[in-house]
Amino acid sequence: MKKFGIAVHGGAGTMLKKQMTAEKTELYTRGLEQAIHAGYEILERGGSALDAVEAAVRSLEDYPYFNAGRGAVFNHQGKQEMDASIMNGKDLKAGAVCAVKHIRNPVSLAKEVMLHSQHVFLCGDGAEEFARERNLETADDDYFFNEERYEQWQYAKENNVLKLDHGSEKKMGTVGAVALDEDGNLAAATSTGGITNKRFGRVGDSAVIGSGTYANNETCAVSCTGHGEYFIRAVVAYDIHALMTYRGMKLNEACEYMVNQKLVEFGGEGGLIAIDSLCNIGMPFNSEGMYRGFRKNGEELYTAIY
Amino acid sequence: MKKFGIAVHGGAGTMLKKQMTAEKTELYTRGLEQAIHAGYEILERGGSALDAVEAAVRSLEDYPYFNAGRGAVFNHQGKQEMDASIMNGKDLKAGAVCAVKHIRNPVSLAKEVMLHSQHVFLCGDGAEEFARERNLETADDDYFFNEERYEQWQYAKENNVLKLDHGSEKKMGTVGAVALDEDGNLAAATSTGGITNKRFGRVGDSAVIGSGTYANNETCAVSCTGHGEYFIRAVVAYDIHALMTYRGMKLNEACEYMVNQKLVEFGGEGGLIAIDSLCNIGMPFNSEGMYRGFRKNGEELYTAIY
Repeated sequence: MKKFGIAVHGGAGTMLKKQMTAEKTELYTRGLEQAIHAGYEILERGGSALDAVEAAVRSLEDYPYFNAGRGAVFNHQGKQEMDASIMNGKDLKAGAVCAVKHIRNPVSLAKEVMLHSQHVFLCGDGAEEFARERNLETADDDYFFNEERYEQWQYAKENNVLKLDHGSEKKMGTVGAVALDEDGNLAAATSTGGITNKRFGRVGDSAVIGSGTYANNETCAVSCTGHGEYFIRAVVAYDIHALMTYRGMKLNEACEYMVNQKLVEFGGEGGLIAIDSLCNIGMPFNSEGMYRGFRKNGEELYTAIY
Repeated sequence: MKKFGIAVHGGAGTMLKKQMTAEKTELYTRGLEQAIHAGYEILERGGSALDAVEAAVRSLEDYPYFNAGRGAVFNHQGKQEMDASIMNGKDLKAGAVCAVKHIRNPVSLAKEVMLHSQHVFLCGDGAEEFARERNLETADDDYFFNEERYEQWQYAKENNVLKLDHGSEKKMGTVGAVALDEDGNLAAATSTGGITNKRFGRVGDSAVIGSGTYANNETCAVSCTGHGEYFIRAVVAYDIHALMTYRGMKLNEACEYMVNQKLVEFGGEGGLIAIDSLCNIGMPFNSEGMYRGFRKNGEELYTAIY
């Protein structure tokens, strides 16, 4: 039996265990499960890893409790300004968008850029113009409105602070997925609403191929979550590939070394999910928790927060 | 005597030798020389590699014959929309901007992002707002107007094509610099006006840390020029570092392997400049030519096109 599987994350950070209620745990777990199902279903039908990661990330974007798509945080102007990227390990094709507004599923826009533009990376109004030309689904401010996010923004504005997602939780709000399909193809995708009250068109690693997202059939597919500025400077996702290719590390060895040694020394808080062509999955994080889960064929679905 | 040096490029591509006049050769050579002088002067006075690459790239941006800053090509809207990035090998700090308009020296804005924002990567209007807050020099449309560029744009619009800089020359219009200072610090910077008639807020590798620009005192500083989409997907600049760190390659070996083997197989046309902590310089390209040059202490200035 050929192995296939999918892993997802809903962000990493210091989600203090003592502040986590049973109700919240249930809510986040359900969001992860839905995303895993959405991607797994495609893999089970013989679909591609690329379509599976898109479907999983769309599910996470549509779920209002993760910081991406519908649940994206408010920026300084009171808008949702989102980044996303996707990469196909088979042909190393990639698509990315940054600072897009009113796009219901930024991950699908990134995929559209990959498949139907001459480019890899589009930004802002231009990316939105491309989305309209390609008839991607848009959404108005009401769709993105969320009382809790709004209050976070008000608090952040009043205190003149940048928040990596929720206040006291300091969760790194990003979602992502990595998958292996039965044809042996790998893919990765990442999407985020960034930082509450962010200004200046700040772009994080979720839009950066090599940093937040990377996939290569020869080694692995990776999606990151964490303090984006550190992840850009450390070129984290590609580095997992480089450690496997040039150093001959196994997936889990590369993941552990990257997240629990290299990033810790560098001061970069966060985590990542990764899958290799043997369907090994790594989900290391150096923060207090990371919303995560996976499903492989012939195995039970797994989710965890801490 | 401690070694120090600087290398610059003014873009790579198929600048057909038969189309190059003596006058044009002189013009481009002078632009390269001025940039090398601007950076070298800083290194000679004991200044930092970071300041030297900024000065060299500013000089190239101010020179109207390279596709960056003043000489940036027209986008679909008839504007100059520019990308730039910079990285300091000493502390792995980095700054990048994409899709900025009316900024006289995008490389200096990237440096400002690195030094004076909490972020690494800013885009579009937000980046311009940050530039105004930091009192960076702006420039109006007249400053960027250039008859030859305008005609290239008109031609591209009429024929509905994207041009990597000049028509028949197909030059990859990007400028960049890498330097080693006498304290052993490395730095890299890259800047571009992108593609004539480009739409959709297309961002190339020049804005992407890891792809177009990377610097790390442990290995090297790299600035790339070429077909940006391929350079993003191949994470070119960081890969030189990875080949040196994980494979133990020397700078020139890593440069040759990357540009004349890996990128050629991948279909990625272009080149790069790189310098290591021993002041070795690599300037490989797989296109017909690359505007390039360098100066090391105790040696003559060198420039070349083919």
